[in-house]
Amino acid sequence: MNVDGRHYRTIWLKDSDPTVVQIIDQRHLPHEFVIEDLTSVEAVARAIKEMHVRGAGLIGATAGYGMAIAALHAPRTSPQAFMAALTAAGETLKATRPTAVNLEWAVKRQLSVIEAAGNDIEVKIQTAFDMAQTIADEDADFCRRIGQHGLPLIEAISRRKNGEPVNILTHCNAGWLAFVDYGTATAPIYAAHDQGVAVHVWVDETRPRNQGARLTAWELGQHGVPHTVIVDNVGGHLMQHGLVDLVITGTDRTTYTGDVANKIGTYLKALAARDNGLPFYVALPSSTFDWEMRDGLAEIPIEQRDGTEVSYIGGLHDDSIKTVRLTPATSPAANFAFDVTPARLVTGLITERGICDASEAGILGLFPDKKPSA
Amino acid sequence: MNVDGRHYRTIWLKDSDPTVVQIIDQRHLPHEFVIEDLTSVEAVARAIKEMHVRGAGLIGATAGYGMAIAALHAPRTSPQAFMAALTAAGETLKATRPTAVNLEWAVKRQLSVIEAAGNDIEVKIQTAFDMAQTIADEDADFCRRIGQHGLPLIEAISRRKNGEPVNILTHCNAGWLAFVDYGTATAPIYAAHDQGVAVHVWVDETRPRNQGARLTAWELGQHGVPHTVIVDNVGGHLMQHGLVDLVITGTDRTTYTGDVANKIGTYLKALAARDNGLPFYVALPSSTFDWEMRDGLAEIPIEQRDGTEVSYIGGLHDDSIKTVRLTPATSPAANFAFDVTPARLVTGLITERGICDASEAGILGLFPDKKPSA
Repeated sequence: MNVDGRHYRTIWLKDSDPTVVQIIDQRHLPHEFVIEDLTSVEAVARAIKEMHVRGAGLIGATAGYGMAIAALHAPRTSPQAFMAALTAAGETLKATRPTAVNLEWAVKRQLSVIEAAGNDIEVKIQTAFDMAQTIADEDADFCRRIGQHGLPLIEAISRRKNGEPVNILTHCNAGWLAFVDYGTATAPIYAAHDQGVAVHVWVDETRPRNQGARLTAWELGQHGVPHTVIVDNVGGHLMQHGLVDLVITGTDRTTYTGDVANKIGTYLKALAARDNGLPFYVALPSSTFDWEMRDGLAEIPIEQRDGTEVSYIGGLHDDSIKTVRLTPATSPAANFAFDVTPARLVTGLITERGICDASEAGILGLFPDKKPSA
Repeated sequence: MNVDGRHYRTIWLKDSDPTVVQIIDQRHLPHEFVIEDLTSVEAVARAIKEMHVRGAGLIGATAGYGMAIAALHAPRTSPQAFMAALTAAGETLKATRPTAVNLEWAVKRQLSVIEAAGNDIEVKIQTAFDMAQTIADEDADFCRRIGQHGLPLIEAISRRKNGEPVNILTHCNAGWLAFVDYGTATAPIYAAHDQGVAVHVWVDETRPRNQGARLTAWELGQHGVPHTVIVDNVGGHLMQHGLVDLVITGTDRTTYTGDVANKIGTYLKALAARDNGLPFYVALPSSTFDWEMRDGLAEIPIEQRDGTEVSYIGGLHDDSIKTVRLTPATSPAANFAFDVTPARLVTGLITERGICDASEAGILGLFPDKKPSA
């Protein structure tokens, strides 16, 4: 999408040196727009782990490019040594974020095509770069298609409201910053806005890391989409008073039975949507489905991050980013990063193939080729 | 409760000079413990208006002491001149937080007893100081009784868990800092802790003003109650995983039909408690009931505060309090201060007279003397 009127993806190869991967270091947003060069697997792993990049699709694409960089630097003494280095790089990358299924998927996909590319190391390296590009292109294309499939939901509400702005609540950032382009939850919103359908987005700030206040608000603003930032406590009140028409979130992992793991707090918004008879949709590319897991609540591992993300917060003060302490020095803080919204609370899933029920029947109806082995 | 091992109320007369009122200036918490001397009606009014003190019970008690200070400095030329000065002082105090019902109630109560105390100015002054003490004592006593009535709820869970810590989630600060002592939501927790019942409190940080992270965490920590600060998004996840046994919150206004207005986000926790079959209690002195309102969602006005409370946050940086910007400079923010939890989601109300259902029948059963006129 656009930044200062110019189109960007979230990850790309540097124009002047296509062995260098460039990303937007999202830790500086919304206060500064910083582009970072990545030239080693360690730098890529750190960029994922320390959340210079984040979001299911972008993590997958970054891992894809990370494997290409690994191929570039792997020993060329033998195909075995080369593949051993790539396998090790894959382990390094996979260890960065335990809940992110796209990470494992991108690494596995790279290892498989690189392995299959014969014994010529140069061919293997080119294969890795091609696959990194393919993963990124597919991600952008899938998000674009998610936008097209979700658009009619917004158009229908817009018609019902005689063109009054459609109020959409979203949580966290499942925007283009979380993918390679368009985003998932935001894709139908951008599609509607770009077609002239009036929309207004309630942006949950999404504590503790404030991806909503920092990233979603920033990207919507850059693209010109009307929006208002709210604290995470507000959504239920807005729904009680008719100020929300539709909730759309992303997901970090969704079971093939429709249970949705997403940023902590998503479950609370799903409960409020249900209590107020409002549609709660989850937008995702099929790579985010977990085709093995049946019970999201019991099986999806929930990452616990450092409590300092709760106790401290960074923001702009006198033109520089300062970190301030919010809590008493002796009070511990806990930091659960995700929660699981049970399928029963999800109105539907918006995928690159269309919209389906959040149920085994609905999901496998749209993805019969993915049917898990019994 | 205790601060650094010494017992404090939130307001008291200075030991060495009982014409001076002392308060904890809560704006500095949790980073600094500042005691402020109040020696004039103007200083008392400023302390209320600028939120050195806050919370329904404490505002009432502060107004009571403010009237005593007013009596001390009123002209003694005649009972009429004396009473005119006190009436003017009452108007000054009432104007500080025009919606705080306890403020008007405390001023009215003082004026009435001072008027009735005959023509001896010294007796009138003593009456004002006695009444200030009575208002504070009654507030503390009501909170203590709320604690005694709520205690068996915690003891029962403790027995069921064979003495393992009872996990209680609370939202905002309905603690002793909001009253004269004990608090409301916290009163049963302090009672349990002081009796040796193992408890652990999940403290919602309570964005945007972070009363949980700043005040509840601090007061629990000072009194030695085990607790953990969490962001407001986490409660649902904790409940899904059996990590919450009981939710207790306070309330700013509760209808006689049981609808509970409280800090924004309370409704979301009530929904999660219901979805997970957990008890959700609200603790309040009977002065917080609205005996006129039947439909909380339709009738209770919800204050909208300035969006800068969402966009900016203050905290400790290099030993001083700094304010940082959290959102893009061009993104608007909305700030709804309260929400209404419908009675159907409330397990029970803990009052100074005991526990009742959150229903007209339950509430009027406990307070038959308050029955609204038809």
